Amino acid sequence: MKIQNSRITVGIAGGGQLGTMMILESRGLPMNFNVYSETGDDPATTIATKTYKGEDFHKFVDESDVVTFEFEHINRELLQYADSQGKLRPSFKSVELKMERHKEKLYLREHGYPLGDFEVCNSSSEAIETANKYDNYVIKKSEGGYDGKGQFYKNKMNGFPENDSSVFVVEKFVDFQYEASIISIRDYEGRKYSYDPSYTLNKSGILIKNNSPLIDQDITAQMRDIAFRLMDDLDYIGVMGIEFFVKDGYAMINEYAPRVHNTGHHTLMGSSISQFESHIRAITELPVSEPVTYVPSGIVNVIGTELSPEQVNSILALGNTRIYMYGKSEVRRKRKMGHVCVASHSNESLSTSLSHVMDIIYGNELHRFI
Amino acid sequence: MKIQNSRITVGIAGGGQLGTMMILESRGLPMNFNVYSETGDDPATTIATKTYKGEDFHKFVDESDVVTFEFEHINRELLQYADSQGKLRPSFKSVELKMERHKEKLYLREHGYPLGDFEVCNSSSEAIETANKYDNYVIKKSEGGYDGKGQFYKNKMNGFPENDSSVFVVEKFVDFQYEASIISIRDYEGRKYSYDPSYTLNKSGILIKNNSPLIDQDITAQMRDIAFRLMDDLDYIGVMGIEFFVKDGYAMINEYAPRVHNTGHHTLMGSSISQFESHIRAITELPVSEPVTYVPSGIVNVIGTELSPEQVNSILALGNTRIYMYGKSEVRRKRKMGHVCVASHSNESLSTSLSHVMDIIYGNELHRFI
Repeated sequence: MKIQNSRITVGIAGGGQLGTMMILESRGLPMNFNVYSETGDDPATTIATKTYKGEDFHKFVDESDVVTFEFEHINRELLQYADSQGKLRPSFKSVELKMERHKEKLYLREHGYPLGDFEVCNSSSEAIETANKYDNYVIKKSEGGYDGKGQFYKNKMNGFPENDSSVFVVEKFVDFQYEASIISIRDYEGRKYSYDPSYTLNKSGILIKNNSPLIDQDITAQMRDIAFRLMDDLDYIGVMGIEFFVKDGYAMINEYAPRVHNTGHHTLMGSSISQFESHIRAITELPVSEPVTYVPSGIVNVIGTELSPEQVNSILALGNTRIYMYGKSEVRRKRKMGHVCVASHSNESLSTSLSHVMDIIYGNELHRFI
Repeated sequence: MKIQNSRITVGIAGGGQLGTMMILESRGLPMNFNVYSETGDDPATTIATKTYKGEDFHKFVDESDVVTFEFEHINRELLQYADSQGKLRPSFKSVELKMERHKEKLYLREHGYPLGDFEVCNSSSEAIETANKYDNYVIKKSEGGYDGKGQFYKNKMNGFPENDSSVFVVEKFVDFQYEASIISIRDYEGRKYSYDPSYTLNKSGILIKNNSPLIDQDITAQMRDIAFRLMDDLDYIGVMGIEFFVKDGYAMINEYAPRVHNTGHHTLMGSSISQFESHIRAITELPVSEPVTYVPSGIVNVIGTELSPEQVNSILALGNTRIYMYGKSEVRRKRKMGHVCVASHSNESLSTSLSHVMDIIYGNELHRFI
């Protein structure tokens, strides 16, 4: 990495909550943070050293020593240009596979990773035909999918396009015992680290809550091995999140994210260092610290709503909770507006606290928000 | 507290590192942060919601729902105006006592707190005469003293003013076994909390490093009792730091600070919540969380120097360390430019790590920096 000025300048493509937390958590390190935001008014722009928008992405890359991203569906030209300048971390390969779901799936299958059954189809009609072979299925549009977007379930097919000649991935629905996720780190010299995995609860493809660590040591070890292998295969630098299905004693990859991830926000509480600082240290070639879990922790996402003053009070009154609202200008259904971190001395009391937080935010009406 | 808009607006008087960390640590709470900075270009201004400077302090107070400060030697008119509007937290009383050292000392003595011997003198010549009654002494100018400024030691009297009719405090030098500090919190309903105290190492009145917790449970209890009593006496709201001398099994107050304090920066690592967020929650009438210490932690201040890239690397390579540089524009001798947080599983390994950090920053030449 070539440093242009006396301080390292990190460029973050994307100005949402992940970019914001990368800056907030690393702001004490002697660095500058450039932020590229398509609209120019995302949350991270308010704390960036310098902000770029729209067509300014060449300048953004040129004026940064290293470029990372908080979102894989960002301006492709930006990522390619950063890659051509040798500045992109993690690698373009790792994000390119994510731009179209079928490429990720095929890559993982070709490299022998444990996965559920799937087929790649070249139109919506072919997808439906293929899906009908399975008792239960999920159809995912290959491009543009995240947070449940472009996903269709057997009993929830509303909005499915009729004559669409895009690429679709048809997945046999995995009848999992539980879902889980691991956050891992690889530094520029190939040293690898991981956080304790978490149980994750998703609805309609959106993370609702998670809690860490897992009780099952064997599943933990499987997830860790897979994460370390995948990061090596991709010659990865930075933090990666991988989501898993767990069934019959085996962990199968659902998908990976080449960035800090929503299932790692609990590392803001109860861990020796957050995923956000770990990522920034890894991509800037600073020493990464082996993460230490002090106590069990988890989060509840605040989706499709802001918190009222009464809710803020009730959540903080539980004790050992912290609130992170993202400062987004508009509330929309399914939109992640913030999260609540909870830590506790035992898994049991953590679960109880997380349930209380769920009740305070959503009552019995989660379906109204996502 | 009356809230003018949909979000609580916190006004912070002072734009240095303490204000910066209050904002960074509490930024996920649904609040806005106004910053008043005399020059308008201090570090906290870069992350404030709105910045005020110079004569704008009435507007700053008017546009904030609650006003706090990071420094007691700030614009007195501002503090008085905020107090007159019922917005100042902690109370004006608690900061007024600190504007002139002799008032703090007299208040503490009158209220029966354990203190070393001292006398108040009305000129520099009277101070010298009084000091000569003691084997060893410290003479402190009553006004404008912090971080060792305006302090004169028996064997370090350079700069002592000859014909100065200011008020001086002459203190008999306390031949302490060690120095210690406690960070405590009192909320708006009078509930009190404290962090585990720390051992502190000061040179020429400047904190060099600290480490927490104390081994001596009895001293810890004494410090906690004194902190709780003092916060009640002052009808205090917010975080308070108190520095102690420990001698012959007793803790004596050296001085208190009506704000977040340098001896509480270790709460950024190894604790369930930092002193900065605790302070913001207390003054905004949000529930305060009982602080939990996960592991022993401490800091080393970075004084009179920036860190070179090699130093940054060496410090982070120790593991379980975090760096907080404050982004000040000018390096000056004795000026706090940042700090390094260290956490560890035991007091012994913590001490070792702190020594390594001291070596990396100062080598054997601490005297060159402070």
